[in-house]
Amino acid sequence: MSQNIYDQSEFFGNYMKLDRQTKGLDGAPEWPQLRAMLPEFRGAQVLDLGCGLGMLEKARNMTSDDAIVYERVDLEGLKLPEREYDVVFSSLTFHYLTRLPGLVAEISKSLKRGGRLVFSVEHPLFLAPTIPNLVVDQETGRKVWQVDAYQREGLRTRNWFVEGVRKQHRTMGTYINLLLSSGLRLTDFVEWCPSEEELADNPGWDVELTRPTFLLMGAMKD
Amino acid sequence: MSQNIYDQSEFFGNYMKLDRQTKGLDGAPEWPQLRAMLPEFRGAQVLDLGCGLGMLEKARNMTSDDAIVYERVDLEGLKLPEREYDVVFSSLTFHYLTRLPGLVAEISKSLKRGGRLVFSVEHPLFLAPTIPNLVVDQETGRKVWQVDAYQREGLRTRNWFVEGVRKQHRTMGTYINLLLSSGLRLTDFVEWCPSEEELADNPGWDVELTRPTFLLMGAMKD
Ligand SMILES: C[S@@+](CC[C@H](N)C(=O)[O-])C[C@H]1O[C@@H](n2cnc3c(N)ncnc32)[C@H](O)[C@@H]1O
Ligand SMILES: C[S@@+](CC[C@H](N)C(=O)[O-])C[C@H]1O[C@@H](n2cnc3c(N)ncnc32)[C@H](O)[C@@H]1O
Repeated sequence: MSQNIYDQSEFFGNYMKLDRQTKGLDGAPEWPQLRAMLPEFRGAQVLDLGCGLGMLEKARNMTSDDAIVYERVDLEGLKLPEREYDVVFSSLTFHYLTRLPGLVAEISKSLKRGGRLVFSVEHPLFLAPTIPNLVVDQETGRKVWQVDAYQREGLRTRNWFVEGVRKQHRTMGTYINLLLSSGLRLTDFVEWCPSEEELADNPGWDVELTRPTFLLMGAMKD
Repeated sequence: MSQNIYDQSEFFGNYMKLDRQTKGLDGAPEWPQLRAMLPEFRGAQVLDLGCGLGMLEKARNMTSDDAIVYERVDLEGLKLPEREYDVVFSSLTFHYLTRLPGLVAEISKSLKRGGRLVFSVEHPLFLAPTIPNLVVDQETGRKVWQVDAYQREGLRTRNWFVEGVRKQHRTMGTYINLLLSSGLRLTDFVEWCPSEEELADNPGWDVELTRPTFLLMGAMKD
């Protein structure tokens, strides 16, 4: 199993204070566009990978629907039933996994014909730098994002609440070709960017114009 | 008509000295992967937009096949016949055009069912910066590419042989959604990167690992 930092309580305690945790989906700015990629859920078999707010106890307490089954399973090496799901969803989880190709193949197999995979990841441009750094260029005064290893995929260690969070950088090409080579058709592609209105309400989000944080994708099983 | 710098002889004279012009396709490192996206040409109706080596006289002199027709036409506002082509090809031309959406819609209309659009552009990561700058970060010694306006699309003025070459930056999302919304299915996607072998022969190409120069895409009319 690759490191699952969400199982550590120090990290988790801080993570839970993020807007997206305290306010729920309203605190996740990319949610409206991710949701727009999802088909109608009524009567659908839906699988959410890396779900909820990190800890299953919490998730169980927050929902009360017999149709929901929570499982604690390592996504690396996961086996899924064939032609079972209408929707497979995953929010901000795939970039923690080292063995993503096997998982995407498994997801494709598990989708019914016409079924959808909808997921988000940290944007390749956001995760590419070996050291994440937004600096002011001395000469020109521009705020610049320092990209240093876009084509070198693999481990990126980040200090985020705790030291040493292990993420996996993949290029745009790798994500897209993972879908295509698994028999999925690309249907949706959004590099999340705040609207003028959202910027006015959240001036700090202007960094998103320099480089996006979130990449959202939708694909269909033919 | 947007500026067509290739019609200026000073620019053109220098441009012609590039490897890709003197050595032909052998001097274009991305060609093998772009070619791999192309279907068999035998018996096919093929349209090449922004073709050849820039000036039509030269192109006419280099080829002698009655089946080839050369035309000097502005690609902005181009009208094409319906369901005419098996292949529409364009190498490193789309990022000069301001009115690309109309052209892609026209291309989609002009493709036969199962026909292909194959094209390359300067990579969004390459063209995003308002000022292109590869610098050595003082603190860490890393070579970094300064990205400052990825989500601000539009004019990027570059000094390349001559001053003031006008290019158009578009995000990855814009390119992909242009295809999807025009009824094209994405089939191929390559962010060109030199192989270990090519790097050994051309050490200067290591900048491509920092950020890619070329984006190659293939799409099919359903
Ligand atoms: C950034 S959180 C996303 C949580 C939630 N989907 C959201 O969007 O708010 C990442 C999630 O990935 C899960 N995760 C990371 N690595 C995993 C692995 N190897 N197996 C199973 N889950 C994993 C964590 O438990 C956590 O719930
Ligand atoms: C970088 S060159 C590419 C030439 C060739 N396809 C190659 O890959 O070597 C760009 C081409 O775009 C053409 N071009 C630029 N703007 C144009 C426009 N508005 N209408 C027609 N052609 C245009 C130029 O004439 C030139 O041939």
